[in-house]
Amino acid sequence: MRGRLVPILAALQPIWLRRCFQTTSTLRSFSNQIIKSPSLLSLDLADSWSSTSKQSDSSPIQENTNNWTAKIIDGKAIAEGIRSRIASEVSRMKELIGQVPGLAVILVGQRRDSETYVRNKTIASEEVGFKFKMIVFPENCTECEVCNALCRFNEDPSIHGILVQLPLPQLEQHLDEAKILNVISLEKDVDGFHPLNIGNLAMQGMEPLFVPCTPKGCIELLLQSGVEIMGKKAVVIGRSNIVGLPTSLLLQRHHATVTVLHAFTKNPEKIAREADILVSAAGVPNLVRGSWVKPGAVIVDVGTNPIEDRRSEHGYRLIGDVCFKEATRIASAITPVPGGVGPMTVAMLLCNTLESAKHAFNFT
Amino acid sequence: MRGRLVPILAALQPIWLRRCFQTTSTLRSFSNQIIKSPSLLSLDLADSWSSTSKQSDSSPIQENTNNWTAKIIDGKAIAEGIRSRIASEVSRMKELIGQVPGLAVILVGQRRDSETYVRNKTIASEEVGFKFKMIVFPENCTECEVCNALCRFNEDPSIHGILVQLPLPQLEQHLDEAKILNVISLEKDVDGFHPLNIGNLAMQGMEPLFVPCTPKGCIELLLQSGVEIMGKKAVVIGRSNIVGLPTSLLLQRHHATVTVLHAFTKNPEKIAREADILVSAAGVPNLVRGSWVKPGAVIVDVGTNPIEDRRSEHGYRLIGDVCFKEATRIASAITPVPGGVGPMTVAMLLCNTLESAKHAFNFT
Repeated sequence: MRGRLVPILAALQPIWLRRCFQTTSTLRSFSNQIIKSPSLLSLDLADSWSSTSKQSDSSPIQENTNNWTAKIIDGKAIAEGIRSRIASEVSRMKELIGQVPGLAVILVGQRRDSETYVRNKTIASEEVGFKFKMIVFPENCTECEVCNALCRFNEDPSIHGILVQLPLPQLEQHLDEAKILNVISLEKDVDGFHPLNIGNLAMQGMEPLFVPCTPKGCIELLLQSGVEIMGKKAVVIGRSNIVGLPTSLLLQRHHATVTVLHAFTKNPEKIAREADILVSAAGVPNLVRGSWVKPGAVIVDVGTNPIEDRRSEHGYRLIGDVCFKEATRIASAITPVPGGVGPMTVAMLLCNTLESAKHAFNFT
Repeated sequence: MRGRLVPILAALQPIWLRRCFQTTSTLRSFSNQIIKSPSLLSLDLADSWSSTSKQSDSSPIQENTNNWTAKIIDGKAIAEGIRSRIASEVSRMKELIGQVPGLAVILVGQRRDSETYVRNKTIASEEVGFKFKMIVFPENCTECEVCNALCRFNEDPSIHGILVQLPLPQLEQHLDEAKILNVISLEKDVDGFHPLNIGNLAMQGMEPLFVPCTPKGCIELLLQSGVEIMGKKAVVIGRSNIVGLPTSLLLQRHHATVTVLHAFTKNPEKIAREADILVSAAGVPNLVRGSWVKPGAVIVDVGTNPIEDRRSEHGYRLIGDVCFKEATRIASAITPVPGGVGPMTVAMLLCNTLESAKHAFNFT
């Protein structure tokens, strides 16, 4: 009787709960094929303080010099490579089982930056051969209408990833973001914003179903650029649920020593200047000046701040959190805006959706 | 039809999932009565970088001097006060609804420190008037036997908190810790170790059902000692799932600027020396020497390392991670071992169990 209990318990748990605690070889091999990021479980190391903790920092990333011309980390090119490998996998899937991954996007309102992001996702999704569905709601739609649409996508077996483009418009707080995101089935939450995913991302010995796209993209940029993360001092500017927080947790799983700065941090400049790896996700144009950067540091600029520009096609252009001109003279490598983290976010979204579809079809 | 969708969806969700997203006034008022820790949601602040971020650190906690005699933070006395308020609440509950909170503990094997911890929990639990159940398994028991016992406690309406004393004995990895902990019903997981709880602890705008006991105890010690957390530099030594990680997340929710050190950190001494608040949870006796401490810092020593001592009653005594003699000369305040965090962990366990019972009985 007792011998049969565990399988029975397992069967009683919801599928997603079981999957949150499993690491299949599929997951690992997937990561190896398309992207460099390994499974988080495979990174786990015992913290043995005695041997390593007392060593002094004898290996700074680079010599201290003020004559850098930072290498530009070409997110656009790296993302293109990933998208091309995803397209091949989709072709193979279609050929072997007659199925393709499906992505569904819900857009509420007419924010011009949101529209740009969604357009980019649509194009990227169709280019790799995904099925793509989108519903656009007017700004004054009801919570119910959005939830209703999400439920239909949850039940649609041709859809493997669902996302709601954030931020939602707030007319008198009529749309509760947490409530709406909570309706998305965990197994299709390719943005990885569910608290259970964040918990599994944070905890050693656990593996989230999906790592949030932007943080995953940041790490992938570092790995593909040959930047070692383990043992490095990493500073993340910003602690948002969708970028700053998960990026800091992910860097910690990769064994960086992580400090998170936020608006209540005193003297952020001084702390940032100690970072070997500096990730800025504050959403403040030009917050990070040259004086914030340690000579030789690697900078990942997540900021995508629209500023008015009449010469530009859409009347605005995107700039980062980092004062690019100043930083390139001090850092050893930097991601540009645009063309850095942005394209990687889209590539990681496709990546998560492909992963989800592979699980759904049991396709390896 | 659409108007009725949200209530229907809510009804379809498991109860615990709904509760993870709600903040009842009960939760808030409870926190106010028994302990100082506020609800995490009530702490949330918008990160507005423009006004605060560029100020320099003009207010160190204390003047830089080497002539401190640190104030000893008396965890035993603070915990006694909390336990006494819990006992009053239990009496009130018994009088008004004829019910008391119930705590169940599972102990596997005969680790002497685990036996001590469980004994302390038993005594504390009975003193405040809780119902207490314990099952002791031999070291070579099966995973099934443990899970079976947990399931019975899950279904027992007189039990509101369940914990498995960790670490579990590992005879050829026969007991999977994550799998066993996962069997505990989320609504009775008073240790707060479930990934969903950790995710909700990490994310702004969310509130975990239960904050893990030791981290909650550390914050409570700081608050009851009048230590301001917001804007302070906090360094947490250790990143375990049960102490280091959740303590760092909790300090961040309280708006400290947090750095987590681990065994792969280079020059931890130098980083620790910058901390206004230093929490050590490495489990290494005397790791933190005087040279690791910033003059005037507040130290919370979570280490409870048993070392042999023939003169002691049980043949061993507990010492912390911090070299107490050296630290008291430099810090402004410090928790002793024993008598610091230890008693607070037990008090917070009682606190979480009372909270759980109040929810179960809808008792305010």
